[in-house]
Amino acid sequence: MVIRYPNGKAYKPSQLSTPAVKKEKAKENTTFSNRGKTLEDDVNETNEFYLAAGLANIHKKPVPVQIVKVEYPKRSAAVIREAYFRTPSTTDYNGVWNGYYIDFEAKETESKTSFPLKNIHPHQITHMQSIVKQKGIAFFIVRFSSLERYFIAPFDMIEHAWKQMEQGGRKSIPLAAFEEHAEEVPLGYAPRLDYLKVLEKFTRNLKVRESYD
Amino acid sequence: MVIRYPNGKAYKPSQLSTPAVKKEKAKENTTFSNRGKTLEDDVNETNEFYLAAGLANIHKKPVPVQIVKVEYPKRSAAVIREAYFRTPSTTDYNGVWNGYYIDFEAKETESKTSFPLKNIHPHQITHMQSIVKQKGIAFFIVRFSSLERYFIAPFDMIEHAWKQMEQGGRKSIPLAAFEEHAEEVPLGYAPRLDYLKVLEKFTRNLKVRESYD
Repeated sequence: MVIRYPNGKAYKPSQLSTPAVKKEKAKENTTFSNRGKTLEDDVNETNEFYLAAGLANIHKKPVPVQIVKVEYPKRSAAVIREAYFRTPSTTDYNGVWNGYYIDFEAKETESKTSFPLKNIHPHQITHMQSIVKQKGIAFFIVRFSSLERYFIAPFDMIEHAWKQMEQGGRKSIPLAAFEEHAEEVPLGYAPRLDYLKVLEKFTRNLKVRESYD
Repeated sequence: MVIRYPNGKAYKPSQLSTPAVKKEKAKENTTFSNRGKTLEDDVNETNEFYLAAGLANIHKKPVPVQIVKVEYPKRSAAVIREAYFRTPSTTDYNGVWNGYYIDFEAKETESKTSFPLKNIHPHQITHMQSIVKQKGIAFFIVRFSSLERYFIAPFDMIEHAWKQMEQGGRKSIPLAAFEEHAEEVPLGYAPRLDYLKVLEKFTRNLKVRESYD
C-alpha cells in the first residue's frame, strides 16, 4: 500500500492510487493534494489508525497551559477564565511500539529548498539527546508543505546540523540533505503517513549498531 | 539508600535517617511526615531527580484543555479566556527508562483499609491494556495518604481486580492485597519515591516470562 520513492527522485502524488486518492481526484479534478490539512492532522490520523489496528500506542501530548483562574458555575462544567500558554519542556508526540519507546516532533516548512532550524527549540534537542541516551527512538517528521513531501529524519541527522549551526554553520538543512539522510514517506490513505515502516529500518540499524558495541 | 520492608510489615517512616528526614525531624520535633505534599509532588520531584541524574526521562503530561477563546493583547502574552477541562484519554505519566517504555498513573486514597476502584477510569484500563500489548511497562503508584504508605502495583494486579468488579466483585482493593501483590516503596530524600528500583524487579520477571515463550 505504501510506495517508496528512491532518494532524490521527486515525489509525484498523482502516482498514488488508493481509493481515498481517487475519490479526492474525482472531486477536485486535479492532482491529489493535502492542502487544508495540517501535518498535525496527518500524524494524529495515523496514530489513531495505529492504535485501532493494535500496531502502536502513540499520542500527541496536550498543549501545556498555566491555569490562573477557574470558575465553577452551578450545574455546569468548570470554565477556565484565565490561562497562559507555556513552553513545552518535551516533544509533542511519544508512545510505545513493539517494545520501543518512540519520541518525535512534527514540523512543517513552506520553504521549497531547506528546513529552517529556527523551527526547533533548544530544549527539544536536549530532550531528544536524553531520550537517545535512554535507548528510545527519537526523530523528526518534516513536511515541506509547498512540495507536499514528507521526511522522517533520524535525530542524529538533526543534531548534526544543529551542532554545525552552533559552530557558525548554516541555519537550515537543505532539501538535498533530507533526500540523502532521511527517509521519504509518501502520503497514503490508511495510515496517512506510515512512519512505522521507516522505524522498522531505523531499529534494524540500531540492532546492527548494538552488535558492534 | 532505599530501604525495603518485608511485605505485610508496617512501614515506619521514623526509621529513615537520610539528612532531609533528620532536618524535618529537627524542625517539627515529630516523626517524618509528608503532609502538605501531594503524591503528584512526590512523583514530579522523583522524575526531576531521575532526569537530572540521567537515569530516566519520564514526565507528567499536561492537563488536557479544550481552548475556546484566546485574546491577543498588544505587547503581551496571549491570554486564554475560555477553556474547559477534557477527560484524558491516556495516563498521566510516561517516558523511557533504559530502553523500556514506562506508563503509569498515580492515585491517592484517604482510606486506611482499601483502595476504591472508582479512582480509576475505564479508559485508563483500556489504555494500559494496549501498552502492555506493545511491550511497555504499565503500573499504578498508589498512596494510602492517612497511612503514609506507597505501593507500586503492576497493571496485572489492578486489571485482575477491575475484571472481578465488572463481574460483580468488590469495588475496592484491600490493603492486604497491596501488601501481598504490590511492592511497597518507602519515602526517601533523593529520589523521594524510588520506583525505578521496583521496575528493575518487574523487568527481571518480564525477561523470565519472555524466556518461557
